[in-house]
Amino acid sequence: MTEHAVDQRAVVDLLGVLAYAELTAFDRLAEDARLAPTLEGHAALARMAAAELGHHGRLTARLAELGADPTAAMTPFVRALDAFHESTRPRTWLEGLVKAYVGDGLAADFYREVAAFLPDPDRGLILEVLADTGHADFAVREVRAAIASHRTVAGRLALWGRRLVGEAISQSQAVIAERDQLAELIIAGTGDLAGVARLVDRITAAHTERMRTLGLNP
Amino acid sequence: MTEHAVDQRAVVDLLGVLAYAELTAFDRLAEDARLAPTLEGHAALARMAAAELGHHGRLTARLAELGADPTAAMTPFVRALDAFHESTRPRTWLEGLVKAYVGDGLAADFYREVAAFLPDPDRGLILEVLADTGHADFAVREVRAAIASHRTVAGRLALWGRRLVGEAISQSQAVIAERDQLAELIIAGTGDLAGVARLVDRITAAHTERMRTLGLNP
Repeated sequence: MTEHAVDQRAVVDLLGVLAYAELTAFDRLAEDARLAPTLEGHAALARMAAAELGHHGRLTARLAELGADPTAAMTPFVRALDAFHESTRPRTWLEGLVKAYVGDGLAADFYREVAAFLPDPDRGLILEVLADTGHADFAVREVRAAIASHRTVAGRLALWGRRLVGEAISQSQAVIAERDQLAELIIAGTGDLAGVARLVDRITAAHTERMRTLGLNP
Repeated sequence: MTEHAVDQRAVVDLLGVLAYAELTAFDRLAEDARLAPTLEGHAALARMAAAELGHHGRLTARLAELGADPTAAMTPFVRALDAFHESTRPRTWLEGLVKAYVGDGLAADFYREVAAFLPDPDRGLILEVLADTGHADFAVREVRAAIASHRTVAGRLALWGRRLVGEAISQSQAVIAERDQLAELIIAGTGDLAGVARLVDRITAAHTERMRTLGLNP
């Protein structure tokens, strides 16, 4: 897919943003676990959190292997990711699950698209840490069951899902605007602006599909 | 060590209380991780949390193997353990580390003493999940470094350590008073009240040692 050489700084950026994203995913899933109505749900979300932390460890190990300082690689993304989580803090167990499924799904799609422009082993590593570990099924099952027993829940959660997307887009734009090498990687990888538009279309379509899977109006 | 048969309900109780203790340890370490002043400290505490969750999984798997429902086995201990954590919520990164080292150390000593009265494989499993995974070193290093640079910190943290012990003792007494089979296991295992007193002495001595290791007045 890439005929041109990839700017090594863009590789470090992508590994860095993902490493910090996984660490904050750990925090947030661990926090949301305590909203669980049952001990089983609590442990299930805690396991998702632990899996994310494992991914974080693999990404920081790869950064170190590339001679990059993992903390320095993560730092440029701390503010935007923290702001995203601050502005989308779930107030209920179901909001937490929708965020885990819809929000993380959207982010994973975006990172996967960009990873496709990288050479291996980084492309492979990123695709691997983004692979769903069966946790999505759990979120889908719980949310669908909740909607089935309380119809009014669906409208509120659909609004929540749309808010997640809005915040995610605004934060990613802020990140890309600050990191020239990431912006160039995306433009060069997609080919041109029409390619960028197609990338956005693919991500949007997958998001719509996930909302429908949950039983929510996208 | 045990010549008498062990009441199976006591085994389920011990596995149940430990399984819930590990789940709450996960919650609390994950929460305290966000108090870390650095991304390295943040990830270090998050890794401790993930390790505790792994232990939780092994204990619930063993409960299921014994034909016990893990949730039912944990439920009798939810109130006391939640109360302990509510009353000892760290306000700072250092308080969190002292709690992880001194509080968890004390609890582990107690559980180890009781596990010694059980037959294998439960004794072995409990000793294994309680084995320190190198995390204690991290807490000791951070706390000692903080005390070295701010002498006044030591006095406040020593008070905090004593408060942790007070709360831990009061909550364990509440648990044992409610679970006859656990109380009987401890009495039968130690032999008599003098044996119980020696067990308490051993636990106290180890606690004193840990406080000194941190550089705190016990």
